[in-house]
Amino acid sequence: MPKNDDKIYFSPDLTERERACFEAGIKLGALYHILSGIPIQNNENVINSIEIGIESAISCQQFVKSVKIHLDRAKILGKKESEFDYDEISGKIIKAEVLIEFKSVNVLAKVEWIDELEYPLMYIEKIQEK
Amino acid sequence: MPKNDDKIYFSPDLTERERACFEAGIKLGALYHILSGIPIQNNENVINSIEIGIESAISCQQFVKSVKIHLDRAKILGKKESEFDYDEISGKIIKAEVLIEFKSVNVLAKVEWIDELEYPLMYIEKIQEK
Amino acid sequence: MPKNDDKIYFSPDLTERERACFEAGIKLGALYHILSGIPIQNNENVINSIEIGIESAISCQQFVKSVKIHLDRAKILGKKESEFDYDEISGKIIKAEVLIEFKSVNVLAKVEWIDELEYPLMYIEKIQEK
Amino acid sequence: MPKNDDKIYFSPDLTERERACFEAGIKLGALYHILSGIPIQNNENVINSIEIGIESAISCQQFVKSVKIHLDRAKILGKKESEFDYDEISGKIIKAEVLIEFKSVNVLAKVEWIDELEYPLMYIEKIQEK
Repeated sequence: MPKNDDKIYFSPDLTERERACFEAGIKLGALYHILSGIPIQNNENVINSIEIGIESAISCQQFVKSVKIHLDRAKILGKKESEFDYDEISGKIIKAEVLIEFKSVNVLAKVEWIDELEYPLMYIEKIQEK
Repeated sequence: MPKNDDKIYFSPDLTERERACFEAGIKLGALYHILSGIPIQNNENVINSIEIGIESAISCQQFVKSVKIHLDRAKILGKKESEFDYDEISGKIIKAEVLIEFKSVNVLAKVEWIDELEYPLMYIEKIQEK
Repeated sequence: MPKNDDKIYFSPDLTERERACFEAGIKLGALYHILSGIPIQNNENVINSIEIGIESAISCQQFVKSVKIHLDRAKILGKKESEFDYDEISGKIIKAEVLIEFKSVNVLAKVEWIDELEYPLMYIEKIQEK
Repeated sequence: MPKNDDKIYFSPDLTERERACFEAGIKLGALYHILSGIPIQNNENVINSIEIGIESAISCQQFVKSVKIHLDRAKILGKKESEFDYDEISGKIIKAEVLIEFKSVNVLAKVEWIDELEYPLMYIEKIQEK
């Protein structure tokens, strides 16, 4: 398996920082769309299990050093008191961060619901070279 | 919240057994499409976490008494020895069962890859009235 | 490829009507979770294209005679006037029906948001034997 | 709605090129996970409809100038001659490109299955400043 795919496929003038940002975006895009629509209820065991499950999944991907998902308990409906009493994961409750390490560059990227934007913003909070 | 939605929306000549079969189908269809495409690797902790996470999620849904997911370890690639060394969940590795309880009826429904069919078959193994 | 999987895997006392209900549930569960989280905006071309695309996909599945998706225009936000101005598909806007034909049985099953239930109800509206 | 979210949330030392690469990654991660698991068969109308549907959806997202999906016909199974005769979208058949425009920067990013890597590689083919 070739190691230097970045030479063959990627634009030669792409910097390591730019590549690390691209990889961070891929992981947040994946994480967000994997989580969207998953059934959930306001039960700590259920929420924890889903968080850990999807964290583990995203951790398998390339260049992921760590990933942390924190679903917003305050916005999750339902305790299954009635059969209709549960919710689904959407951008309003997804809060997550991934730490990407590509060669000498670390990128900390996050997604969270921003009330003023009414939007689940994905952003790069920190980028640093070792 | 009305309890008798089954009177209003559902065909009046639908039996409890038929309704239970419908509910079982919904859960397997959901479970299968939630799992599809999730990154995974052949690491027992990762596999376990994903199984438990999605079991917990499906358990939130209506009429689900229990759900068990068992991803087929023998077919999961990758130990992340290189950065490309991971896999994705697809029908080939999904094995799961849901136990549905609708009123007096229990339905045990399963999905698993059937080699002769080359197909992830969803089927009702058992249906019984209490 | 064996044709009689229903004899081998399915409970022998399952009726054709019950099997048809199970198949209807599978398709609605799949349709719902495939649609959930897809980006959308309030533009007729965009909405139409997504509806037709997912209708075509679900139509490939076993025993599907027809499928119709109608996303609720009145609830879809965004015309991309600003970069944040788009929405995501969720249960609140999904309205769909599938017509299943299993042997002698036809089942018409639907999913739609029910305001009183605050819930995207999946139900069987009609079941008939030819 | 604030326009300058990039000042508030994003690392202040992130360049426009880096931001554009991040946005490209988000779109490919989303596109890939939305497509994964969608039922399909080797019928030109079906394939076309799915491609156009998901292209339209991804086009709604921020900073997307264009998106083109081309599913690999040669690898799609099934013409629904039997009820089991259809396939599901996976990384092996996904080929797509997105053109991102963030301020003065254009990024052309692609995903396609690379046989030598046995992997659906996401890469930036071109990045340029206007």
